[in-house]
Amino acid sequence: MEHIIAADLPNLEQGYRRNLINSITGFKSVSLVGTINRSGITNLAVFSQIFHLGADPALIGVLVRPQTTPRHTLMNMEETGYFTINHIRQDFLYQAHHTSARWDHSEFHACRLTPWYSKGMKAPYVAEANIRIGLQLAETQTLAINKTVLVIGAIEEIWVPENCLGADGFVDLEEAGSLTCSGLDSYHSTKKVARLTYAKPANIPRLLKPQLSTEV
Amino acid sequence: MEHIIAADLPNLEQGYRRNLINSITGFKSVSLVGTINRSGITNLAVFSQIFHLGADPALIGVLVRPQTTPRHTLMNMEETGYFTINHIRQDFLYQAHHTSARWDHSEFHACRLTPWYSKGMKAPYVAEANIRIGLQLAETQTLAINKTVLVIGAIEEIWVPENCLGADGFVDLEEAGSLTCSGLDSYHSTKKVARLTYAKPANIPRLLKPQLSTEV
Repeated sequence: MEHIIAADLPNLEQGYRRNLINSITGFKSVSLVGTINRSGITNLAVFSQIFHLGADPALIGVLVRPQTTPRHTLMNMEETGYFTINHIRQDFLYQAHHTSARWDHSEFHACRLTPWYSKGMKAPYVAEANIRIGLQLAETQTLAINKTVLVIGAIEEIWVPENCLGADGFVDLEEAGSLTCSGLDSYHSTKKVARLTYAKPANIPRLLKPQLSTEV
Repeated sequence: MEHIIAADLPNLEQGYRRNLINSITGFKSVSLVGTINRSGITNLAVFSQIFHLGADPALIGVLVRPQTTPRHTLMNMEETGYFTINHIRQDFLYQAHHTSARWDHSEFHACRLTPWYSKGMKAPYVAEANIRIGLQLAETQTLAINKTVLVIGAIEEIWVPENCLGADGFVDLEEAGSLTCSGLDSYHSTKKVARLTYAKPANIPRLLKPQLSTEV
């Protein structure tokens, strides 16, 4: 095994350290966050630090790194109060990755992705995405320890393909083609290993019975 | 497409809503967090909300949900100041999932997983895990919006199999067998789609040249 200790980290080349620390935490979600400013200019940016914060109220957290993430996203969120999360699929992966270049105009146009608006949401969705979430900005917090900004959004609406929503509310991300990512630049598709039953001491976990109907 | 709006959410059955909101954010990392209390009793718990917070200093965030996560982990972190993150692999998936039952003794023993201690870390690692991170508790913050606790850990050491660490610091999680998860109970293996070059406006993203040597 390779063994790297805290005292080694400052001596590592900066890019090496960034790759190491960004990949060591495990696989991540990977989405395009869509926003629009007051003048109507749209923006798209790749985010991999998006996570569930609560089901009731339904809240999602997004980490915005001070140095590495385009700040347009945060500015637009604060200007208009809305943003969208659009899962990246393999079909438009290269275009999605290309949004992270420093564009001086909208990444939709620059990267040939299609803005799509729903009635209830001011911020643009990505039409190419199968899974789309529209959110209202609830609050932002700057973490004192390193100035990372934690954005908290309240879910306003969810769009999911009919064949990806189970009778128990589970969203089949694999069926939807959502990718996962690792580190700064690695994208992966997934293959289901198992859904397991709720764990109790007396019961060894078993495969959960599939629930495929799509009633809400 | 299924369309679910915020006003629908309170009317959904609680389990349905929990599955929906937990799975909609995308794929997640999935690890066992290892801790020990002052009396020497060890604890293991599955966490899927673990993320990169910064590379310099090297910080990792862990979300602890007030209602759903065993509080022993947080208590032990605060008692001893240390914890470990151990990526879950398919080989011990059922045992790992079983740790989330309400055990009244150590999950290591209950679920037949092997504690392993390194010289520099008080908290136990999982010997069966390929990728292991040892951390010192840096701070905890309770989010006012819903009492979720954000635990911030400073990386003390990293253990990675030699064949999984690239010349550029990238950790090949797929080679290490690390799984990803979605929702509350679904586990997935991954298949690499692409590592892409750093995005610039003038350059369409390309496949990154593989870097397979393992020098630190």
